[in-house]
Formats: sequence, C-alpha cells, structure tokens
Amino acid sequence: MAAQSWEDQAQVCRDILAQSIPRQWLLPADKLPSAERTNFLEIPRESGILTETELQITETDATGLVESMAGRTWTAEEVVIAFLKRATIGHQLLNFATEFMVEDALSQARDLDAHFRRTRKVVGPLHGVPISVKEMVSFKDRVTNTGYVSWSSNVASEDALIVRTLRKAGAVFHVRTNLPQTCMHLDCNNNITGRTHNPHNIRLSPGGSSGGESASIGFRCAAIGIGSDIGGSIRLPAAFCGSYGIRPTTLRTPWNGVGLAGEGQEGIRCTLGPLTNSLRDLDLFMRAVTDGKPWDEETSLVPIPWKQLTPSPEFTVGVLWDDMVVHPHPPVQRAMREAVAKMTSAGIAMKDWQPYKHAHGMRIINDLFYPDGAAAQLAALEASGEPWLPLTKEAFTRARKMTAAETWTVNLEREAYRTEYRMLMKEQGVDFILCPAYLGVAAEPNEARYSAYTAIWNILDMPGVVFPTGLKVDPDLDGIETDYKPRSAQDEFEYRAYAPEKFVDAPIGLQLVGNRFCDEETVAASKILETIIRSS
Amino acid sequence: MAAQSWEDQAQVCRDILAQSIPRQWLLPADKLPSAERTNFLEIPRESGILTETELQITETDATGLVESMAGRTWTAEEVVIAFLKRATIGHQLLNFATEFMVEDALSQARDLDAHFRRTRKVVGPLHGVPISVKEMVSFKDRVTNTGYVSWSSNVASEDALIVRTLRKAGAVFHVRTNLPQTCMHLDCNNNITGRTHNPHNIRLSPGGSSGGESASIGFRCAAIGIGSDIGGSIRLPAAFCGSYGIRPTTLRTPWNGVGLAGEGQEGIRCTLGPLTNSLRDLDLFMRAVTDGKPWDEETSLVPIPWKQLTPSPEFTVGVLWDDMVVHPHPPVQRAMREAVAKMTSAGIAMKDWQPYKHAHGMRIINDLFYPDGAAAQLAALEASGEPWLPLTKEAFTRARKMTAAETWTVNLEREAYRTEYRMLMKEQGVDFILCPAYLGVAAEPNEARYSAYTAIWNILDMPGVVFPTGLKVDPDLDGIETDYKPRSAQDEFEYRAYAPEKFVDAPIGLQLVGNRFCDEETVAASKILETIIRSS
Repeated sequence: MAAQSWEDQAQVCRDILAQSIPRQWLLPADKLPSAERTNFLEIPRESGILTETELQITETDATGLVESMAGRTWTAEEVVIAFLKRATIGHQLLNFATEFMVEDALSQARDLDAHFRRTRKVVGPLHGVPISVKEMVSFKDRVTNTGYVSWSSNVASEDALIVRTLRKAGAVFHVRTNLPQTCMHLDCNNNITGRTHNPHNIRLSPGGSSGGESASIGFRCAAIGIGSDIGGSIRLPAAFCGSYGIRPTTLRTPWNGVGLAGEGQEGIRCTLGPLTNSLRDLDLFMRAVTDGKPWDEETSLVPIPWKQLTPSPEFTVGVLWDDMVVHPHPPVQRAMREAVAKMTSAGIAMKDWQPYKHAHGMRIINDLFYPDGAAAQLAALEASGEPWLPLTKEAFTRARKMTAAETWTVNLEREAYRTEYRMLMKEQGVDFILCPAYLGVAAEPNEARYSAYTAIWNILDMPGVVFPTGLKVDPDLDGIETDYKPRSAQDEFEYRAYAPEKFVDAPIGLQLVGNRFCDEETVAASKILETIIRSS
Repeated sequence: MAAQSWEDQAQVCRDILAQSIPRQWLLPADKLPSAERTNFLEIPRESGILTETELQITETDATGLVESMAGRTWTAEEVVIAFLKRATIGHQLLNFATEFMVEDALSQARDLDAHFRRTRKVVGPLHGVPISVKEMVSFKDRVTNTGYVSWSSNVASEDALIVRTLRKAGAVFHVRTNLPQTCMHLDCNNNITGRTHNPHNIRLSPGGSSGGESASIGFRCAAIGIGSDIGGSIRLPAAFCGSYGIRPTTLRTPWNGVGLAGEGQEGIRCTLGPLTNSLRDLDLFMRAVTDGKPWDEETSLVPIPWKQLTPSPEFTVGVLWDDMVVHPHPPVQRAMREAVAKMTSAGIAMKDWQPYKHAHGMRIINDLFYPDGAAAQLAALEASGEPWLPLTKEAFTRARKMTAAETWTVNLEREAYRTEYRMLMKEQGVDFILCPAYLGVAAEPNEARYSAYTAIWNILDMPGVVFPTGLKVDPDLDGIETDYKPRSAQDEFEYRAYAPEKFVDAPIGLQLVGNRFCDEETVAASKILETIIRSS
C-alpha cells in the first residue's frame, strides 16, 4: 500500500476538517465549559454567538422550519447560518463533525431564497432544512472514509443518491458527521477525527455507529440527520442523545453512494434513515425520500410511497420488558414501567411480549454481518496499518468465514425466524412491540457491546422508532438492583456496568417496533404513545 | 444413501402418477393418433370423451369460467370434471402430469358448489377455477421431487403458501405437472416421469422448465397453470405452446413451500407466476395472489397490491430485434416485423432498442445461478445415482464455485447493470421493450440451450409478459436465411438448428418487458399490443 504512515494518511482528513471549520463562530476561550461540567446542552444559549432568533431557529423542528420559511418568517440563509453557528460550537465541544460544507450550504440557501422570492413557493418539502449527514454518505469531490484511515483519499465521483434526492426536495447539507472505525461499533471513535461525545453528559458515548449524528441532533446542530442502521446504528445513538430516529424497513431509502466495507453482502442489509427532533419530522423525511422516487435509479428499492396516516389508537402493543439474555438497567426499567402505567390509564390495549428465540436471532445476524470472516474490514484496516480500536476486535471475534452455500443456510434460518415471529404476533394479536432501545440509557466510551435490543429487529427487518420519554436518570429512583442474579457472564458484565452516578443527565428513550413495511403505522402509533408517555 | 437403485426410487413417483390417473377418461386405442400425426390440439374435440359443454368449458378462460359459475351457467363440479377429462387425454398424449388429484379436486369443487348454493356468492376471485401446478410446488402429504430421483420420498408437511393463498380465493387444484431433471433446463424431461411433448407438434419440446405447465395450458388441461421462472421458465414454454405467461417482478408471489436445490441463494431469485389462455387471466391470478396478502406470512415479499389498470396507449416501445449474440430464427423475425408494422399503423410510439451489454448480463446471471459450483444440484443427483440427462451437464459447465465475498462482487455488478439499463431506458424515453421470447419458435427435444432472450430480464428483474401473435411457422414465408453469416460458434449452432419443416404448426409468441414492479403496466400494455398484433 501507500508508503505513507497511517498518521499521514489520516492527516489528509483531519486537515480537511480543520480547514472547513467556520472559525468565526467558535467559542472564545473564556466561554469554554469548566472541566467539571458534563452537560453541554445550554452552552449555545450562554455563548452569545447565536442571537435569540438563531436560538429559536435551531430549537424548531424541520417541519416548523419549512412552515416558517414558507410563511416568510425566516429565510433559508438565516436558517442555515443559525445551524452553522450551533454546529460550530457543537463540534468544538463534542467533536462530532468530519467536515463542514459552509460555502455549499450558504450558496444553496441563497439559491433557495432567490427561488422563493421569484416564485413565492418553496422548492419542495425540505426547503431550506439544514441536514447533517453521516460521513459514509458520499458527496461529489469529497472524501468518504467510513472510519478507515486507508480510505482517506477515497474521493467520490458523485453525490450519493439520497443526497441528490433530498437536495431536489430543498434540503441544505452543511456538515458531515463522525462514525467509528469500521462503522461497526455502538460507539463513535476512530483514528482519523477521534471520539465524539454525548451532549447530555460528555463523559458518555453518543452511541453509534451514527454517533456524530446523534450528537448533532441532540445538540441541534442540524434539523435532521441522516444515519445508517444495520444493527441499531440509528436507534441506539438516538436514544443515547435524547433524539428521535427510525430504522425504516430495508429497501425504502436509497443506498447508492454509501461507503461500507463488505459492499454487495445482502443477507443482512444496512439502511439509511433519519434522526430528528420530532416524530413528525420522521414522516417529513421519509415522505421526501419516497416522493423523489429513488427506485427509478436504484432499482433494488421497493416503490412504496410514504403514506400519511392519521394516528388512531386501534392497536395492541406487546411489551417486551427484558430479552431474557441481558437484563435492562434500572432507569430503562423505570421508563418502561412508567410508560406502561400511563398507557394503561390511557386505555391502550397491551399484553406482555415474551422474547421469541432472541439469542437464536442474534446468532443469525452475527453470522450474516461478516460471512467473509470480516476480510473486507480487515483488508481496509491493514491497508493503512492503523491500530485497532478496542471495539473493532470485539466486533470481529464473531466473524465466521463462509462459502456462498453456507450463507444460504443462514438466509433460510433468517427467513424461517421472520415467518415464525410474524405468525406469533398474528396469533397473539400484537401489532407493535414496545421495548428498550438498549439495555441502558447510554454507555461509557468503549463500553457499548450488546446490540440485541435493536439488532433483533434488523434480522426480522421490522421498522423501529426511538423516541425520548422525557425522563432522565435519577439516582434516587434508579439505584442498583442489589438483589439481581445475572443469568450469564455477559449479563453480569452489563449488570456491573451500571451505577447511577455514571449516567447523570442521560435521557431515557424507548423503542416501538412494527411489522415489516408498516413504517408509517409505527410512526403513527409512536405519536400516540409519545403523547401519552410524555404527559404528566 | 438409500440401498435402493435409482430406478426403484423413481418407481415410487411413477406409481403415484399411474395410480392417480382417472382411467375412465383415457382415449381408447382406436382413438389414439396415428404415428404420423404431430398436432394434437383437435383430439379432445374428436375424442367423444368430452361433451360439447365440456369442450366449451375447457375453451373458456378463467375469468370467463368464474363469470359463468357466478351466473349459474356452470357448477364448479362440472368445470373441474371437464378439465379433468381433458387433462387425462392430454396426459395420455403429452405425458405432462406427475400426479392427478381427482378426489381432492372433486371434493373441493362440491364444497364450492355447496357454498354457492347456500350464499349465492362465489368464495373468491378464483371460485372453481381448475389450476395445474408445477411439481416443485408442494402439496401436503404428497411428494415434491423437483425432477430429482433422490427426492422421490420427499413428502411435504404442508401446502405451499401459494396453494393455500389461491385455495382461499376458490382455486381448485386437480393436476401437478412435469419439469426437467434439476428444474434447470429449457426443456422438460427427467428420469422419473420422462419427457413431456408440445401439443402443437409432439416432435417438439414444450419448453421448460415449466414444460408440464405449458403443455397443460396449451392443451387446455387447466384454466391457469402455476410455473416458476429464474431464467425464462414460464415465458419460454408459454411461447413454445402458444400460451400467455408473466414472470412477475420477484417478491410479488409467495415462494414458501417450493422445492428447488440451492434454496437460500438470493443473488438471483426464482419466482412463481401464471401461464394462462388470456391476458386478463394474468391480472386475475396476480390480483388473487396479492389480495391474499401472502406477505403476512412470508415476510420477504413486498406488500404491493395488484393494481387494476385501464390500458392506455400512452407509452413508447423499444423494439429489440436481435440481442446481437444469437440471431433469431426467420419465423420470429417475421412475427417481430409484422408486429411492428401493425403497431406503426396503429400509431404506437416506438424506437429500435439496442441491446445493452447482454453478454455481460448473461455472465452475471450465470455466475449467480450456481455460486456453490452447483454442489446442491450435484448432491441431489448423486444421492440416487440417476444418470445425467444431456442438458444437465451443459447447465453445470457454467458453474463457478465462489466464496460468500466473491458473490458480493457479482451482486454489485448486477446492481450496477440494473441501474445502467434503467438509466438508458429513461434517457431514451422507452417504457417497454418488445422482443422475442426465445431465438426460435420452439426447440427439438434436448436442443433448447440459449436462454438470454428471457434470462436477461431476470437479471434485470424486469417483468416479462409472453403472448401468442396468432402466427404459426409458415415454410413458404420462413425459409432459411441462406445469406446469414453467424457471429460465433454459438450463433452458428442456433442458426443451424432451424429448418422450417422441423417446426410445423409451432405458434409464434412475443415478449413485452417493463420496468421493475411495473407488472400491471406491462400486462396493460400487452393487452393493447396483442389486440393490434392479432388484428387482421
């Protein structure tokens, strides 16, 4: 490979990032938080860098922003500047960005404003909405490294299809966001641009792999973020950072132009999806994607338009308290209990849902992640000689190299498991499953390992929506379960990872899962449940 | 494996067939055709076995049959008896069946009649429609051998999902039909129940692999047939036997409960679909399938209901005269020319379509057929020690054994090819492509090898409809092209395969292909073109 050291290769992307930061909006030294401070959410308001209007803009969801631009309250340029300012501070504090695209974003916003002045019409449903994008999604003439040092000079020849689709709908792309080495950790650290922090508590991980996105949306550096999810990589970080997210059914959002080692593997598919600050923005994003008919180019997509449903509480929720492999931490249990109590009062039909062979399901997905023995990932690591981060090694210990025919056996197991799960839900009359998004509220750096609360729905290809309950960790309520007897070494490891003082201020999110292709129904049901769960 | 000889194993299924034949409806010796006779289509009428009403019933399409049963002209029992009689004669002459299901069909028909008498309503859109089914589709407690002797005692524990779905819609299943060894020939012969013949000319193959079905539908032994298609196995035999057929977009019809070696391979998918005697019956079948929501059980299916479209000639047809690899035979060229002349007169927008990298596309599909080096097929053959039929060997010479990761490279080539083809059609404003269904009108036994006129659309996953032009081979018009210079040894082989006297009475079908998931549009456009092309 290159005679260059891995550090020199990584430096290419570090330089791109450093040169792209709009330094005029950085916090001055005297505004930087003290070393003891862990919750950074209020810093934008304290900074003096954003005006009151700009604070208001950045605290408005995408649907609200488009309404305000359509109603001439704000221009697209004002909106993008507000988010650029906040993103600059956010990056300074959280290290979430890999590249700012200031000039492109401003020029795009000005074009939108000119169009609006001329026609009095927005160009599309995402007119002027600033969107942050996970680094693996390509932009023309820019590098896509997907967390590999050896890919530091991998310049894209065109924008990813999702970028082209959403740009036509009016979206403005102003910042690209960090992801972990190999893009296969539930965390966010790599040898190029380093570690991203959680804005609620910077001692915590923002989750991963879309950890740059969850930090971005949690800190409101963008109105919408584009993440990817093959085992929880949208939902888990959204939960860690108090945001909303959906992992849509696969083949509903375009994939062309996304960099991921092992491309062409189809046994378990990665999918793009949004992180947002409201449930209605999930609808907004998904409708904009399908209205753009990306299947006209990426023919493997399924041409199903996004339906706008009126939420109606005529459904039955299965409540999955515990997957019986790894026990959820006390704050997650409390959030589940409070949610169920409020849903009961509100008259939502519910029944307990017994996890159906979740360990079996996880064995299937682990087989399907790396049926080449992770050769694609290893090659991309070895090409630069960059050091392995701790979670990289753990990800690949599960890798079992298979022949083509061996993967077929696993595909069949997957199909049988999907059918069995569906039949069981039908038998029991369960439409949606409410469950944790992760065993805990968040994880410390390098500590998130157990993906099954999200990944089980990937192997089943059931769409999952994550939303914040409005609750945070409360040391008074969320003490250690001293009488709990772990079921296994793995369960014990995760049990020991909890102590309330580690997770101060961490928001508690939950997950609602629906049947394959019932994405719209799952968002609609989430709206009803969120209203109930967040009511006081 | 079994101590039994392969002949003994095969005898199990031969006995099942022999014992299932309703012998009371066999032609007596004096009604059997002479050795010189090749066209058997009129034999039912001459036989004296079917009444005039029964002849009329069997010459009515499925849509017409349901109307007549709903209108009380015919009962379901009358209808199934008529088709059973014709199927018995058909089997005697063409050897198309692997098993009759007389008692089940009669009892099902009587139940339908009882339901109708009670409610005055049909049970569903396929009320009383006799359907023949390719042997690989399982029926509970019956053997599924898929053309392998070693599978002769492979008894199914439940009906295939398509059987359950269509039975709920009122379908009656009366006969199962023959397929070739391995199910991967464009022909119809195996070591169990032997060779099936073409009813138009019994010296010709009915095509394959759904050759039992094309003989069944061509001879009107059933109102609808269920075939399968991974490289042309519905369309090619439908064209050989003068029937209609559609290979739908994959994942629109259920697959659970179908036997095929190499199960779990997903790089190129086989799909079930109908063979019929009218275009409207393609709609009827597909609507009945999707109305049954098979995706509620087989979750990999795409939940898109079948749209009923009103045909409208607002489209542009690309005309693919020749794939530039193997030159079509003179009768096919003539049918194409006459079709285009009539379409021109009728004002259909058309342009010539240049084949786009068809040899490249065929290399991709050939890689994807047997990425295990055909180990699954070889194992199923070796398990009994049955002899290889000539086309089996040829099918497997293309097999290249691959690792999981090697198949990913081919998947990516496939995706790129699909996108390029789609972009080209968009650029040129072409909505559908009219082309041959095979290089010739039919093939002699053991001679059909070149699948590209159908298989290219499998790799592109574009739905294809085959319909008869109403033309037959005419030695006066379809002489050998004496001045043609073959492009290659393959082209020369196929060029030499043609002589008009070999193909006496062979019907000429053509194929219309549409974009992925535009199945309904392709059927609707076929209706318009068929009317134009069959007009005098």
